Amino acid sequence: MFVLGIDPGLTRCGYGVVSRTGRRLRAEAAGVVRTSPETDLAYRLAELQEEVGALIREYRPDHVAIERVLFQVNVRTAMQTGQASGVVMAEAAAAGCVVALYSPNEVKSAVAGWGGADKDQVEQMVRSQLGITTPLRPVDAADAVAVALCHLAMLPPESGPGRSVREAVVR
Amino acid sequence: MFVLGIDPGLTRCGYGVVSRTGRRLRAEAAGVVRTSPETDLAYRLAELQEEVGALIREYRPDHVAIERVLFQVNVRTAMQTGQASGVVMAEAAAAGCVVALYSPNEVKSAVAGWGGADKDQVEQMVRSQLGITTPLRPVDAADAVAVALCHLAMLPPESGPGRSVREAVVR
Repeated sequence: MFVLGIDPGLTRCGYGVVSRTGRRLRAEAAGVVRTSPETDLAYRLAELQEEVGALIREYRPDHVAIERVLFQVNVRTAMQTGQASGVVMAEAAAAGCVVALYSPNEVKSAVAGWGGADKDQVEQMVRSQLGITTPLRPVDAADAVAVALCHLAMLPPESGPGRSVREAVVR
Repeated sequence: MFVLGIDPGLTRCGYGVVSRTGRRLRAEAAGVVRTSPETDLAYRLAELQEEVGALIREYRPDHVAIERVLFQVNVRTAMQTGQASGVVMAEAAAAGCVVALYSPNEVKSAVAGWGGADKDQVEQMVRSQLGITTPLRPVDAADAVAVALCHLAMLPPESGPGRSVREAVVR
């Protein structure tokens, strides 16, 4: 199973693709989609739509997990982030993916053990869970991988190579 | 020239297509795109994306004018409306349309003469300007036509059938 995690944003939108085979987790890709603050909003959103569509076509995720946008101090930034998340949600649903949303606290709790974890702690836990030895930068990419891991933690485990698929209790 | 006006929303998204030939304005279409509150958010946004794309393919507007989303008392509704507007903006820009945003006050001022006009006054002025004799309901459709009219009022007038395109001042 492939999960695309998204940390939505307009200037930097983090993405991370995590695969799960049995109990084994693997980071398939991580990065950011950037759009220029000097470009008009509608064209930035169209660029984001195009890039997210390209990621979905390349990695064919079964599920897309997106961090929920909460209202921050900067109202304009929150609205732009919300618009970016709307574009990502529409693109994922139109491509036939299951779409799930998680609050920042849910992501931190699932990955680092508590909702108050800071970005560095989240990044370290993400790398530890996936066996990544180099730093995950920019931090939006690590956040996106964390959203994918949070989603996988909520799903029932798949049966792995060492376990029988059929477990007969009555024959 | 064709302008598609949009009053963004998730449960009801108003649309109105107005054409201008010379000085003549004509309502080509008006209505609402509805999505069900019982459907998951991502699928509602994907439905809206699909319907707006279909409107753009059908009417081939040169410009798409969208009412800017301001923060209302209900934060959740404002975020959903923002997400809907993001989807519309991305779809319009991806289709190659010029995209313009107007605040509710700008729309009311342009159409009804002052920013404090209520919805009924806006609806009556829209019908008066376009010679529509039947009520424009739901009101979201009238609002969307008003956004298109506001945009057209901001553009320089086109030369009409009765006027020469070339106006030579020095020969």
